[in-house]
Amino acid sequence: MSSSDSPCPFCAIAEAYPATNPTSAGSPSADDEAHERTSPSAFVVLSTPLCMAFLDIMPLSPGHILVTTRRHHEKISDVSEEESRELGLWLPRLSRVLANVTGVWDWNIVQNNGAAAAQVVPHVHFHIIPRPALTPELRNRSFTMFGRGQRSELDDDEAAVLTKDLRKELARELERLQNKEKL
Amino acid sequence: MSSSDSPCPFCAIAEAYPATNPTSAGSPSADDEAHERTSPSAFVVLSTPLCMAFLDIMPLSPGHILVTTRRHHEKISDVSEEESRELGLWLPRLSRVLANVTGVWDWNIVQNNGAAAAQVVPHVHFHIIPRPALTPELRNRSFTMFGRGQRSELDDDEAAVLTKDLRKELARELERLQNKEKL
Ligand SMILES: [Zn+2]
Ligand SMILES: [Zn+2]
Repeated sequence: MSSSDSPCPFCAIAEAYPATNPTSAGSPSADDEAHERTSPSAFVVLSTPLCMAFLDIMPLSPGHILVTTRRHHEKISDVSEEESRELGLWLPRLSRVLANVTGVWDWNIVQNNGAAAAQVVPHVHFHIIPRPALTPELRNRSFTMFGRGQRSELDDDEAAVLTKDLRKELARELERLQNKEKL
Repeated sequence: MSSSDSPCPFCAIAEAYPATNPTSAGSPSADDEAHERTSPSAFVVLSTPLCMAFLDIMPLSPGHILVTTRRHHEKISDVSEEESRELGLWLPRLSRVLANVTGVWDWNIVQNNGAAAAQVVPHVHFHIIPRPALTPELRNRSFTMFGRGQRSELDDDEAAVLTKDLRKELARELERLQNKEKL
């Protein structure tokens, strides 16, 4: 079955990107065409047995990523205790990775459940959205969080470079955490 | 030291409400005046060694709660691995509790880091915000997420009743989880 058979875009990504070791900077998509495994392209930063992270294809700002469970659940209320812990674990780790790569240390984490809360893809996910500066323009853009305006489409070449940088920094982040434990 | 000596309002709540067993519906504030331990009042739903949850004193909707670490950390990037797992664990549990009590099954989880991301209290916290329905009025209200408009102050009597209901439902939720594990 090709991944495009899945009616859920995030399940399609999960099928196309089996779990890989995040401590190796090359994975999960070492080759340059890796993002073409799904349509639209997926830029996968993290792929573990329980969780995944990839770029939002309509980013509110450069570095806007999504953090999801590999298994299909609609809302955060549906995830298992094990998945909850893992999601909780990756949010701060990926926040540091994103801040280190973008240089932006202000960001929002947003997770929408249900149509009235502006959930678009019905597969549970957290947004991590860097907030470069509080200019009037960006102040307006932040209002689109719960709508669909003013989000620009991802450029594939830029996205591929960003994804590579994020994976490298994630490998470094996990190395730092391992060294901390050894202290 | 009285809790009001703490310059951080969430640390003041943490000091005033030591950890209690969330499986007992009465705690952490069984008596009716419990919320007066701090000023402004605190309506505490959960108080564990690592995490706390209490009502937002300027709710965007009825049931708007905050989930925090007991220890003071500014941003999500600052929390420990142990705290991350715990926060991750409580978000779905408290989401279910909130939905069961309010009857509203659409909600946003929002966590702001830094001034440019509209963080107001510099002690890491997640908002859980029920979204009763997508009326034009509420659509506008959701835009205040990153600003400060249109939030109404909490009524102490209503808040005390809501807190009691949330604690009771939380005790039931934890009982359900324990029964699941036994299966
Ligand atoms: Zn799915
Ligand atoms: Zn504090």
